[in-house]
Amino acid sequence: MKLSELSHVLSEQGFSNRIEGSPDLVVRSANTLEDAQEGEISFLANPKYKNKLTDTRASAVIVSPDETIPDGLTVLRCSNPYGAITATIILVHGYRKHPQWGIDARSCIADSAEIGENANIGPYVTISERTVIGNNATIYPGCFIGDHVTIGDDVILYPNVVIYDKSSIGNRVALHAGTVVGQDGLGYASVDGKWLKIPQIGRVVIDDDVEMGANCALDRATMGETYIGKGTKFSDLVVIGHGTKLGERCMLVAQVGIAGSVDVGNNVTLAGQVGVAGHISIGDDVLVSAKSAVWSSIEKGAHYLGFPATNAYQYRRQAALVQHLPDLRKRLRQLEAEVERLSQRLDESS
Amino acid sequence: MKLSELSHVLSEQGFSNRIEGSPDLVVRSANTLEDAQEGEISFLANPKYKNKLTDTRASAVIVSPDETIPDGLTVLRCSNPYGAITATIILVHGYRKHPQWGIDARSCIADSAEIGENANIGPYVTISERTVIGNNATIYPGCFIGDHVTIGDDVILYPNVVIYDKSSIGNRVALHAGTVVGQDGLGYASVDGKWLKIPQIGRVVIDDDVEMGANCALDRATMGETYIGKGTKFSDLVVIGHGTKLGERCMLVAQVGIAGSVDVGNNVTLAGQVGVAGHISIGDDVLVSAKSAVWSSIEKGAHYLGFPATNAYQYRRQAALVQHLPDLRKRLRQLEAEVERLSQRLDESS
Amino acid sequence: MKLSELSHVLSEQGFSNRIEGSPDLVVRSANTLEDAQEGEISFLANPKYKNKLTDTRASAVIVSPDETIPDGLTVLRCSNPYGAITATIILVHGYRKHPQWGIDARSCIADSAEIGENANIGPYVTISERTVIGNNATIYPGCFIGDHVTIGDDVILYPNVVIYDKSSIGNRVALHAGTVVGQDGLGYASVDGKWLKIPQIGRVVIDDDVEMGANCALDRATMGETYIGKGTKFSDLVVIGHGTKLGERCMLVAQVGIAGSVDVGNNVTLAGQVGVAGHISIGDDVLVSAKSAVWSSIEKGAHYLGFPATNAYQYRRQAALVQHLPDLRKRLRQLEAEVERLSQRLDESS
Repeated sequence: MKLSELSHVLSEQGFSNRIEGSPDLVVRSANTLEDAQEGEISFLANPKYKNKLTDTRASAVIVSPDETIPDGLTVLRCSNPYGAITATIILVHGYRKHPQWGIDARSCIADSAEIGENANIGPYVTISERTVIGNNATIYPGCFIGDHVTIGDDVILYPNVVIYDKSSIGNRVALHAGTVVGQDGLGYASVDGKWLKIPQIGRVVIDDDVEMGANCALDRATMGETYIGKGTKFSDLVVIGHGTKLGERCMLVAQVGIAGSVDVGNNVTLAGQVGVAGHISIGDDVLVSAKSAVWSSIEKGAHYLGFPATNAYQYRRQAALVQHLPDLRKRLRQLEAEVERLSQRLDESS
Repeated sequence: MKLSELSHVLSEQGFSNRIEGSPDLVVRSANTLEDAQEGEISFLANPKYKNKLTDTRASAVIVSPDETIPDGLTVLRCSNPYGAITATIILVHGYRKHPQWGIDARSCIADSAEIGENANIGPYVTISERTVIGNNATIYPGCFIGDHVTIGDDVILYPNVVIYDKSSIGNRVALHAGTVVGQDGLGYASVDGKWLKIPQIGRVVIDDDVEMGANCALDRATMGETYIGKGTKFSDLVVIGHGTKLGERCMLVAQVGIAGSVDVGNNVTLAGQVGVAGHISIGDDVLVSAKSAVWSSIEKGAHYLGFPATNAYQYRRQAALVQHLPDLRKRLRQLEAEVERLSQRLDESS
Repeated sequence: MKLSELSHVLSEQGFSNRIEGSPDLVVRSANTLEDAQEGEISFLANPKYKNKLTDTRASAVIVSPDETIPDGLTVLRCSNPYGAITATIILVHGYRKHPQWGIDARSCIADSAEIGENANIGPYVTISERTVIGNNATIYPGCFIGDHVTIGDDVILYPNVVIYDKSSIGNRVALHAGTVVGQDGLGYASVDGKWLKIPQIGRVVIDDDVEMGANCALDRATMGETYIGKGTKFSDLVVIGHGTKLGERCMLVAQVGIAGSVDVGNNVTLAGQVGVAGHISIGDDVLVSAKSAVWSSIEKGAHYLGFPATNAYQYRRQAALVQHLPDLRKRLRQLEAEVERLSQRLDESS
C-alpha cells in the first residue's frame, strides 16, 4: 500500500493527516521504531521514545502535528498517532485469522444445546445441556461450557476457557486462554466451628464488547449477579469476587484483584496488581495506580495511590516526607541541642 | 416452602429462631436484599447494609434477635443469620447438580488405574497409570491426573484441573477449574554459574474437605510433602510454594502467595494478595490483612498488617503518624523559627 | 548405592568431598532432615535448620566443610552442599519419567505440521497448521499449539499449556500446566471515547533452557517481540506484558508481574509478587525483594526494596525511622513545651 493511499484511507476514517516526504513509498507492514525495517511504518506516541526517531529504519513514521523530526525522515502527521497506527495495522494486517473447524466431530455438544449459524468449534470442546450460543462463535479446543449458559453473537473463546453453568456472555466478547467464568467464590458460614459451604446460586453476567486476558477468574455471585459492564477490558490473571459489579469501559491491568460485593463505576482504570477490598464502591473515572491497596470507597474522578491507597497528591507528599525523615530527625536533634544551650545560657544569665 | 415450615426445619438443625410477621408466606428462593423479589427470602448479617432493609422487596428477611426492623417486614430472628440463610439455601436450592457422564467413552483411563463406584467422568479426561480414585468421583472434561495419584471419595474436579504424579487428595475435596496441583517449584542449584535443575521428588498431599478456587497452583515438595490440612479453603489464583505445610480450617483469599518451606498453623486467615516469605512459621488463629507482606514469623493469635506486615495496632499507629508528617514538619519549622527568635532575644539581652 | 560410591561419583562431577563416618552405609533415596528415614541421605545448606541435625533420622547428611555435627552422625562434607544433594538426587532418582503416548490417536495434528523424531504426544492435544516441532517433544494432554509456531528439541509442555500462533520456543524449554504463551495484551487505542482494539501482530520468543511454572501468561508483542532469554526460570502465575524483553538466567518468583515494554538484563532476580511498571529498564544482576513495586528504572547490580521500590539500604533506614515516628513526635512535643518555658522565662527576666 502506497503511503498516499494510506493517508487517504486514514482521512476517510476520521484521522485527518498530512504527509511530509515521499507519498509514493510502499508500506508493507507496521512495527516499533526499534524493530522496523525498510518498507515498514512505525509511530511515535510516547515522547519518551523521541530519540528513537533518529535511529529507526522505518520507511515512514506517524507523528503528532508539531513533532520535530530528523532530516530526511518521511512522516505522516496526525493529531492521534496511536489511533492512526491502530487503523493502519487493521488496514494492513487485520485481526487474527482463526483456524476453521466448522463444528469439529471431536467436540461434545449436548442435544439440548442451540448453536447459531456459522459456528467454528474446535476439537475437545464441551457444550452442555440447554446452553444457547449465538452466530459466528469461535470456540477453541479444550473449552468447557456448562449447563444453561447464554452466549451472544461473534464471541471468541480461546483454548481451555471454562464457563460455569448459568453464566451469560454478551456479543463480541473475547476471553483468552485459561480464563474461568463463574466458579464458586469463598462462601462459607461458620457453624459449630466448621466451615459450612453456602451453595453459590448466583451467576456471572458479562455484557457486550468485553475482552479478558489469559487465566482470569470471575466468581459467580452467592445470590444475584457478578456483572461486567459493556466494553470493559481485562489483562491477564485478573480476579473478580462474588457479587462485584463493574461499569462500562473500565480497564483492569494484569493481576488486579477485586474482592466481593464491590460496586465499580464507568471508565475506571485499575493499574497492575491493584487490590480492592470487599463491600466498597469506586466512582466513575477513577484511576488507581499500580499495586495500590484500596481499603475504602473512592469518590468519582479521583486518582488514588499507595498502601493503603489515598489521594495521589497527598500520598506523594507523604512519601516525599518519609524520604526526608532522616533530615527531619537530624533537625530535631540539632534543635534539642540548641534548646539545651539556650536553657543553659538562661540559667547562667539569671 | 412456607416460612413456618422453614422455621421448623431450621430449629431442628440447631438454628433456633422465631418468626415476626406472616408464618404462612411461601418462600421460593433466596436472594440478596437488593435483588430479592416477592417470594424470596433474604438476610442481614453485615450491619453496613442495614438501610437496605427499608427498600428490599424480599418477602421475608433473616435478622439477628435484636435488629430493629421497618414496620410490616416479616422477619425470622436467629442468632446466626449467616448460618441460617446458608441452611435455607441448602434446603431450597441444594448444591450444584453436575452433568451426568457415567464414564464417558471419550475419556482416556489407563488400564492400571482403579476407579471407585458411581464414577462420573467427562470427556477428554486423562487418568494415568496406577492411579486410584475413590467412590462418587465427579471429574469434569479436560482434567489430567498423572501417574500414581491417590484420590479419596466424593471428590469434585472441575474442568481442566491438573494433578501431577504421586499427589494425594483426600475425601470431599473440590478443586475449581484450571487449578494445578503438584507442578515442579523453582528448584535449581547454582553450579558453575548455571542453574542446575533439582529433580522434584516430593509430592503434594491435600487432606479431607479442602476446597480451592480457580487457577491456583501448588508446587510439589522438592523432597517430602507440600501439605494442605483438613477443611482449609482457598479462593482463586492462590500459589503455594514447595514444602509449605498448612494446618486445618485456614482461609486463603484470592491471589495469596506463600513461598516454600513455610509452616502455617490452624484457623489462619490470609486476606487477598497477602504474600508470605519462605522458611518462616505462622501460628494458629493468625489474621493477616489484605496485601500485607509477611517477611518474618508471626506468633499465635496475632493480627498483622502492612508492608512489611507488623502488629496491626502498631501499624495503624505508624500509618496515622505518616499522614501527620506534613503537620510534624510544620511544627518543626515553627519551632526552629521560635528557637532562633529566643536565641536572638538572649543575644540582645546579654 | 553405597555412600563411598556416591562420594566417588560426586568427586568425578566436580563436587570434591570427604566422608566422616560409615562409608559402607547404603543410600536409597534423598529427603529433608525432618522427613528422612533410615537409608535416606539429607543435606544442610541453610544454617537456620542447623538444630535439625540433632533429631534427623537420615543415615547420612551432606554438610559444608566446617559445619559442627552431633556425635555419631555420618556426614559427607562438600563446599557446595546444595549442588551435591542435587547431583545425588539426579543420581538416585533421576528426572520425571513421562507417560509414553507415542503420537496418541486422540490428538489432532494438522497435515501441514511437522513433528520431529521420537515425539511423545498425549490425547486431546491440538497442533495447528504450519507448526514445526523438533525432536523428542513431550506434549501432555490438553495442550493447544496454534498456527505457525516453532518449537525446538527436547521440549516438555505439561497439561493444558496453550501456545498462540507465531510463537517461537527454543530447545529444552519446559512449561508447566496451564501456562499460556502469546495471548493478546491490553492493546486499545482511544478513538471517539471507545476502546478500539489494536491487532496484536507481534509474537513471543522463548529462548533455550527456559522453565516456567503453572498458570503463567506471556502477552505477545503488539508489534515485534516479547522475548525471554536463555536459561531464565519462572515460578507460577508470572505475567509478562507485551513487548517486554528479559535477559539470560533471570529468576522470577511466583506472581511476579512485569508490564509492557520493559527491558530486563541478565541474572536479574525478582522475588515473589514483585510488580514492574511499563517502559522502564532493569540492569544486569539486580535483585528486587518480595512484593516491591518498581516504578522506575534500576541500575546494574542494585538491590531494591519497597513501595515504591528504592535502594534497599535507604528503604530499611526510612522504614526504621517510620517505626520511630511515635518517639520523634514525643520528642517534638517535649521540645515545644521546653521552648514555651524558655520563652516565658525570657519574658519574665526582661
